[in-house]
Amino acid sequence: MSVKIANRQQVIDLLDSYDNFLFDCDGVLWLDTLLLPKVLETLGMLRNHGKHLIFVTNNSTKSREQYVEKFAKFGLKVSKSEVFGSAYASAIYAKDILQLPTDKKVWVLGGKGLEVEFGELGYTTLGGTRMPELESPLNSNDPSDPINHLDPEVGAVAVGLDTHLNYHRLAITLQYLLRPDVAFIASNIDSTFPANGMILPGAGTVVQAVATCSHKTPVLCGKPNKGMMDAIVEAHHIDKSRSIMIGDRLNTDMKFGRDNGLASLLVLTGIESEDTLKALDEKEQPTYYATKLGDLYELLQKGN
Amino acid sequence: MSVKIANRQQVIDLLDSYDNFLFDCDGVLWLDTLLLPKVLETLGMLRNHGKHLIFVTNNSTKSREQYVEKFAKFGLKVSKSEVFGSAYASAIYAKDILQLPTDKKVWVLGGKGLEVEFGELGYTTLGGTRMPELESPLNSNDPSDPINHLDPEVGAVAVGLDTHLNYHRLAITLQYLLRPDVAFIASNIDSTFPANGMILPGAGTVVQAVATCSHKTPVLCGKPNKGMMDAIVEAHHIDKSRSIMIGDRLNTDMKFGRDNGLASLLVLTGIESEDTLKALDEKEQPTYYATKLGDLYELLQKGN
Repeated sequence: MSVKIANRQQVIDLLDSYDNFLFDCDGVLWLDTLLLPKVLETLGMLRNHGKHLIFVTNNSTKSREQYVEKFAKFGLKVSKSEVFGSAYASAIYAKDILQLPTDKKVWVLGGKGLEVEFGELGYTTLGGTRMPELESPLNSNDPSDPINHLDPEVGAVAVGLDTHLNYHRLAITLQYLLRPDVAFIASNIDSTFPANGMILPGAGTVVQAVATCSHKTPVLCGKPNKGMMDAIVEAHHIDKSRSIMIGDRLNTDMKFGRDNGLASLLVLTGIESEDTLKALDEKEQPTYYATKLGDLYELLQKGN
Repeated sequence: MSVKIANRQQVIDLLDSYDNFLFDCDGVLWLDTLLLPKVLETLGMLRNHGKHLIFVTNNSTKSREQYVEKFAKFGLKVSKSEVFGSAYASAIYAKDILQLPTDKKVWVLGGKGLEVEFGELGYTTLGGTRMPELESPLNSNDPSDPINHLDPEVGAVAVGLDTHLNYHRLAITLQYLLRPDVAFIASNIDSTFPANGMILPGAGTVVQAVATCSHKTPVLCGKPNKGMMDAIVEAHHIDKSRSIMIGDRLNTDMKFGRDNGLASLLVLTGIESEDTLKALDEKEQPTYYATKLGDLYELLQKGN
């Protein structure tokens, strides 16, 4: 059974046990546009104890740079190297794990985050947000249609959430994946995401469409997949036995920690409750849980 | 082991055994724009013997009317009632099997075929090819965006191949399917189709995207699914034990016949060869095979 972090000594033990604190963002640090209580103080306290903070997000439409700006809006000072998005994970995966040479190009079916992160690692990207001619319907009979001008140097296809998804982009993505030597990298497989009080189709929906027509299985880079952890370990050289994953979702964040040999801490400020936690099998229990992330700061402040 | 139709007596036995001849079209009657040899004569011969002909296609972008025109271009005179497309099957399924009242509306993510066939059965369709405002990107913050004007009377969502698929259409389709009482009808699940020497994403790709974000499993209407056969039986009142399915694909046409209790005849003018046939397990063998459909006419012409 998960241990509830409920007193000062437990926080001290946590600080003694782990050097690397990995955080999910939405539901842990903030909820939509609202910063959660004592988050600022908790992150400050962890930094004062010399902890290595890594912020892990599955949102592939934003680059790390854009994420740093988002943190700044909440008054959270975070450096680019501390942010680990699924777009960056995808690019790291291509470069360090697949060892795709940078003279190979990457076809993007997704947002700006993928373009920026692959670009920063030295790849030329095609598709993505920068081909307005893909807004018009596919006309494969037209010699000028981009489907008749495929680039022989494409070595990988990177797929994530694409709110500009259309049949034209999907058809060209398929042409590249029909080549046996082109890798298929998926930023993440969240099937939906909440926005403006609605549920909208997520990256997983786009990825599944591409997987269906190409009959190829993608490398999965976002949480809870191993690809994301491999990329984090590759980039930050962390010791997993001294690392803990903090999140608000059992099926992504906590699974991500558990499957990859990290300790895990569930906070109840997001979608999970104490009841769902207690109903879990022993092997699915996170290591710890807390009412909110800010408890770490508040409990430590209390006298002995 | 499948019996090869290779002499006159076998054709006579075939004519004695079956009243209803169901045909796949491409690969059986024609290849792209080329009519296959003695097809015209074979269909004429079957009609002269009083046989009931049904042409079964998974293409949901065309209505039966449009299919009749396609047959006419090959010089084949076929009536609308003899054509059974997956768009029509989907509409029949909604009306006769699901018994969706015709005062319920149908949201279409697909082509004209679905709009026409649902329309002919009395349903008002929304979406489909007739909402040009869906060509622009989704803007869920904009009160005028169609996603903020969902129709409370939608009772089913019909999904097929949509070469105008985009994120906007997908997002609205999802909103309807999030309602527990809205049915999810898929015309067919062919993941790709050949066109202009290319492989393009098929209906199954669109259906899988919708299934992924909605977490709903569709009713499948095209070959090889039971929905298609139920709709044919419902519309034509055929006796399955006196019916035979003729096609060029083992995994759709032959499976469609076999799974639904019909005899099956594979022709080798499409994608399968005698070698693939012989390598099959006994239970996957079609009842008969022939080099081409025209053999039925040619063999019958031969003297005893």
